[in-house]
Amino acid sequence: MINIGILGGTGYAGIEVVRLLTMHPEANIVRIVSQSFEGKKISEVYPNLKGICDIECSKLDIDDIAESCELVFTALPHGASKEVIPSLYEKGLKIIDLSGDFRYNDKDVYEKWYGMPHDCPELLEKSVYGLCELHRDEIPNYSLIGNPGCYTTCSILALAPLVKNNMIDNKSIIIDAKSGVTGAGRGLNLPNLFCECTETMKAYKVATHRHTSEIEQELSLIAGEDIMLSFTPHLAPMKRGIFATCYANLSKPVTQDEVISAFKKFYDGDKFIRVYESGTLPEIKHIAGSNYVGLGAVVDERLNRVVVVSCIDNLIKGAAGQAVQNMNLICGFDEDLGLKNTPMYL
Amino acid sequence: MINIGILGGTGYAGIEVVRLLTMHPEANIVRIVSQSFEGKKISEVYPNLKGICDIECSKLDIDDIAESCELVFTALPHGASKEVIPSLYEKGLKIIDLSGDFRYNDKDVYEKWYGMPHDCPELLEKSVYGLCELHRDEIPNYSLIGNPGCYTTCSILALAPLVKNNMIDNKSIIIDAKSGVTGAGRGLNLPNLFCECTETMKAYKVATHRHTSEIEQELSLIAGEDIMLSFTPHLAPMKRGIFATCYANLSKPVTQDEVISAFKKFYDGDKFIRVYESGTLPEIKHIAGSNYVGLGAVVDERLNRVVVVSCIDNLIKGAAGQAVQNMNLICGFDEDLGLKNTPMYL
Amino acid sequence: MINIGILGGTGYAGIEVVRLLTMHPEANIVRIVSQSFEGKKISEVYPNLKGICDIECSKLDIDDIAESCELVFTALPHGASKEVIPSLYEKGLKIIDLSGDFRYNDKDVYEKWYGMPHDCPELLEKSVYGLCELHRDEIPNYSLIGNPGCYTTCSILALAPLVKNNMIDNKSIIIDAKSGVTGAGRGLNLPNLFCECTETMKAYKVATHRHTSEIEQELSLIAGEDIMLSFTPHLAPMKRGIFATCYANLSKPVTQDEVISAFKKFYDGDKFIRVYESGTLPEIKHIAGSNYVGLGAVVDERLNRVVVVSCIDNLIKGAAGQAVQNMNLICGFDEDLGLKNTPMYL
Amino acid sequence: MINIGILGGTGYAGIEVVRLLTMHPEANIVRIVSQSFEGKKISEVYPNLKGICDIECSKLDIDDIAESCELVFTALPHGASKEVIPSLYEKGLKIIDLSGDFRYNDKDVYEKWYGMPHDCPELLEKSVYGLCELHRDEIPNYSLIGNPGCYTTCSILALAPLVKNNMIDNKSIIIDAKSGVTGAGRGLNLPNLFCECTETMKAYKVATHRHTSEIEQELSLIAGEDIMLSFTPHLAPMKRGIFATCYANLSKPVTQDEVISAFKKFYDGDKFIRVYESGTLPEIKHIAGSNYVGLGAVVDERLNRVVVVSCIDNLIKGAAGQAVQNMNLICGFDEDLGLKNTPMYL
Repeated sequence: MINIGILGGTGYAGIEVVRLLTMHPEANIVRIVSQSFEGKKISEVYPNLKGICDIECSKLDIDDIAESCELVFTALPHGASKEVIPSLYEKGLKIIDLSGDFRYNDKDVYEKWYGMPHDCPELLEKSVYGLCELHRDEIPNYSLIGNPGCYTTCSILALAPLVKNNMIDNKSIIIDAKSGVTGAGRGLNLPNLFCECTETMKAYKVATHRHTSEIEQELSLIAGEDIMLSFTPHLAPMKRGIFATCYANLSKPVTQDEVISAFKKFYDGDKFIRVYESGTLPEIKHIAGSNYVGLGAVVDERLNRVVVVSCIDNLIKGAAGQAVQNMNLICGFDEDLGLKNTPMYL
Repeated sequence: MINIGILGGTGYAGIEVVRLLTMHPEANIVRIVSQSFEGKKISEVYPNLKGICDIECSKLDIDDIAESCELVFTALPHGASKEVIPSLYEKGLKIIDLSGDFRYNDKDVYEKWYGMPHDCPELLEKSVYGLCELHRDEIPNYSLIGNPGCYTTCSILALAPLVKNNMIDNKSIIIDAKSGVTGAGRGLNLPNLFCECTETMKAYKVATHRHTSEIEQELSLIAGEDIMLSFTPHLAPMKRGIFATCYANLSKPVTQDEVISAFKKFYDGDKFIRVYESGTLPEIKHIAGSNYVGLGAVVDERLNRVVVVSCIDNLIKGAAGQAVQNMNLICGFDEDLGLKNTPMYL
Repeated sequence: MINIGILGGTGYAGIEVVRLLTMHPEANIVRIVSQSFEGKKISEVYPNLKGICDIECSKLDIDDIAESCELVFTALPHGASKEVIPSLYEKGLKIIDLSGDFRYNDKDVYEKWYGMPHDCPELLEKSVYGLCELHRDEIPNYSLIGNPGCYTTCSILALAPLVKNNMIDNKSIIIDAKSGVTGAGRGLNLPNLFCECTETMKAYKVATHRHTSEIEQELSLIAGEDIMLSFTPHLAPMKRGIFATCYANLSKPVTQDEVISAFKKFYDGDKFIRVYESGTLPEIKHIAGSNYVGLGAVVDERLNRVVVVSCIDNLIKGAAGQAVQNMNLICGFDEDLGLKNTPMYL
Repeated sequence: MINIGILGGTGYAGIEVVRLLTMHPEANIVRIVSQSFEGKKISEVYPNLKGICDIECSKLDIDDIAESCELVFTALPHGASKEVIPSLYEKGLKIIDLSGDFRYNDKDVYEKWYGMPHDCPELLEKSVYGLCELHRDEIPNYSLIGNPGCYTTCSILALAPLVKNNMIDNKSIIIDAKSGVTGAGRGLNLPNLFCECTETMKAYKVATHRHTSEIEQELSLIAGEDIMLSFTPHLAPMKRGIFATCYANLSKPVTQDEVISAFKKFYDGDKFIRVYESGTLPEIKHIAGSNYVGLGAVVDERLNRVVVVSCIDNLIKGAAGQAVQNMNLICGFDEDLGLKNTPMYL
């Protein structure tokens, strides 16, 4: 059992970390830090936890965290994360950060896309990008993990095998992604109201969403050359799930079966990756409530183009589940420990 | 590990049994019987199970079931259950039936409310009503369990403490219940289409719904007198959940705190019952995805009336979860084994 | 054409008044007052109005309103309405107030249920309760209309014929009402977020909701005696609609057909009332998007009880539509002018 | 007033034609033909019509239709339309067909994408493609209108100005479209059940959807060269609406403002087209419940690519509304007669 603290535990990502840890056999939650709900039991804020986790939310006290915890999840807004993480890191804690602050290899990219200076670039070098399927071997060597974004996880996993195998024209990549509303967080913003986002769809931050830079970073790394791509996020009237439809021109004549074989080979042994057989495609309900990733591909021979469809649960594989997967890796547990929940479908 | 068969495993209740069993440490699914999908992998019918449970659906073969299984869940329509259960029972199998066929002490009540003869009334006597919180002590003595209905579970648990403590006028009970659409099953019926049941609500089978008789049977048993009550089911645009609002006139002057204390005492030690503190009430999202029951009460002193609010996940505590709870009881496992999932909230 | 101002035009009730007036042949919107959006075009706040109504929101200026408008709709929070209405009334404007401030005959009832003093009780006497089906003859004599609440309209219309015909025990009335989320308004409150209110249901303000007092006032008036009743509001995951299930013990033996006949007679000639034939019941989708009211009744002979089911669109018949209906009455237009929209169903 | 018949009036497109015509000042519905509901009042099938349109559904009788009607809407499945339309055409009726049967200039294209022979190719030449904004001048010369598909309308209108102005590389077009569930019709298919399509998303018929051919036909016509493009339809958990996100590489350096100006110029005078200002984009709720089309564009200078976002109500501008618009054109009414409904937003 390891003692764990969650900072920002009352946002949607943070509370999903809490929920998953209540079902993890090696996790012992000892602190939940929340500015907004200090002094309240977490089970008053989220009554689903009643009788399961009744810890009182506390305010941030670095010394107390360092004494009581071995590992912390920081589910704070970007910017806030990098203010608190240096002191936690100094205390020797293992840290899994769910914000964008430690996802970058190059601080300039961060500063360009986030529009603010990165105050602790030296820590960027001491952190690893926690996309487990791509960086599984490096992750255990780090104690600071930049846990990937939701859109990012869904998109990179959809395209990595194609880039790796030089199957596509890297200049032609277009990602059209649709997210459930939990992705917008628990902030009191007008567009998040039920009546504003049910029975409608919208695109937002077209050509400017920050996750673009994360996707480009990782695919460029695989390609060995700079990749720039189109990424369009949409909001759909559902709670959970990301559905990414990814387009690229084929760089050589390959069949649908060859593409699917390449996916299977690339993800061979990956417990959470489900590559769909030719003729079938994943849907969000196939993976909702779980850490699984659904991947399917269609080759459009008429146009010499490939379409990859990718689905994750944004709160699990896109946030809290992947964070726990990273915890498992850096703590030496089985990678899927506490993450074996069968998806809900209904 | 016990070997288990699920009959009718591709309906919504049946597949939820399958899903829960994939996460149960003592369950080994060996047969899934489905007329409609014979020969298909269950993970083709419900792709959320891909790689988790890939058993091929088979047709009904009593001998095969008897040889391969120790326990069966029958999630067949009422009427169909009582045709197949006698032969299974004869073979010495443990049977948990999710239909209405074995929920009654009195075959006349069954025949009146179901409008068909009960072909095996002798088995009614050899079965027990599987509402675990009320019949926990008897259940392990039976190998045929009539697993309660969803509306029923939610309603009986809301009213049992009041009836038991003679707190209410038993002639004044009104239950106004709202169900998610999974309660209507997976049948291809026009009213179940997305466009027919989203953004609307309706009442149905007003004053005639079969679950009325189940609720009356159990509350009468507790009261020691015949109780008749109003029960109105409604369909609400959500997947899971039953929300029952129960009204009764107080038979004596009691305070809200006294009512809540009576609930706590009545359910003392029950792992799945959550009695809410005065001033708070359960919501479906507090228990969705779990076997928990949320119970809250308000005393309206102006009118000398009590309002009890009760919530369950209709597919879990209202069907598959309670069935697994019954399995745990008759197999000697911990009552909550494999049922400790934290509710979803999101 | 009459010149119209809408105060509080950017809340959900206010904007529905605006929307309906854009389709009303005698309405000329000249002012939309909004504190929050002063200086913005209404079509920027609600882009559905683009090119249809592009008026700039202005701040409140009583003199300007009095000069430019003949009639105003006030869709302000209760409390705020009664601060601004006296000066508007003094200027000789016709006023239709959508708040609770002018719905009461007795200021003590208002003060008890709203927990604040009523500053202008003298205006209460000069106002009329604008439930058109009950007060059609009086309404044209007034220039200040207290437009009824949404739950109220739905509940009173469901019970008025029964009370009028002495068919029920007035002490036994229970109203279990379910509302869409637009009823909660556009305020930035946590429970109104999509992820907080989709896929769930809850009851709130059990035994204490203010609309109880409005329902009691009107039914008492019909009964000629004081009626007290149970009213329980619920929130359901849909945008529009109120569904009220109303229970009462029959005071004399009447059949379902007699009850339905009584409804038809009571509402004879009422253009917006739809009494359902025996064996059929209204659903929200039957009236959504329109000013219609669906009413159906079931007599439970087993229990000597009647169940009335009532449906309205909370934003239309429960707010803006009824307000326009009142405008038609006090301006001498056809009662259904501009309100003939066929309900949506889909 | 013209006398109108609707064939296939009980499907979702057909009933929307009925609903719109009940609000059209020049329409007199005299026949509703429905195989499935012959002998039933349309208001029993769709109770929203109660008291508004109570016509009894009849079976198909060509002679009767010819005698009683001047104009018919055929909302039959493709294939069925072309069996009945020749006889109606021969009788001299005006016909607006909502199926795919008369949308093609080239029968080979139809036969390739629909996989069946076109039995009456001679009528193809006597019909016109009823996308009013593109073919307004020709439409009044025809009495047989091939009313466009929903995805098609949304996609063509998004791309026509770019193709017309040679702004894009016509080989690079990708359309990622999301539809509400009414688009799947009222058929009793498993994937249309509420519980199968709420809280999820999926792509379907990737690279093979028939509407691709319609989009290609019309854009090729504008381009004066053959265009082939990617079209991916998705199902989103909402009733109404199509949201198309369209991508293309710019063929020359143009700014976002220049693109938007080109749209404004192309659609100058079009009553139902709303071109959004730079920096704003349409959402489905901006046009839901109306015949409007929302169009917005973003130029991604980093990638030299344009993204056009297009929204319609699939049942109105994507089916019934456009059909009525065509009726207005061929009957000499104002193009927007009976179609001036303000969009719902809520």
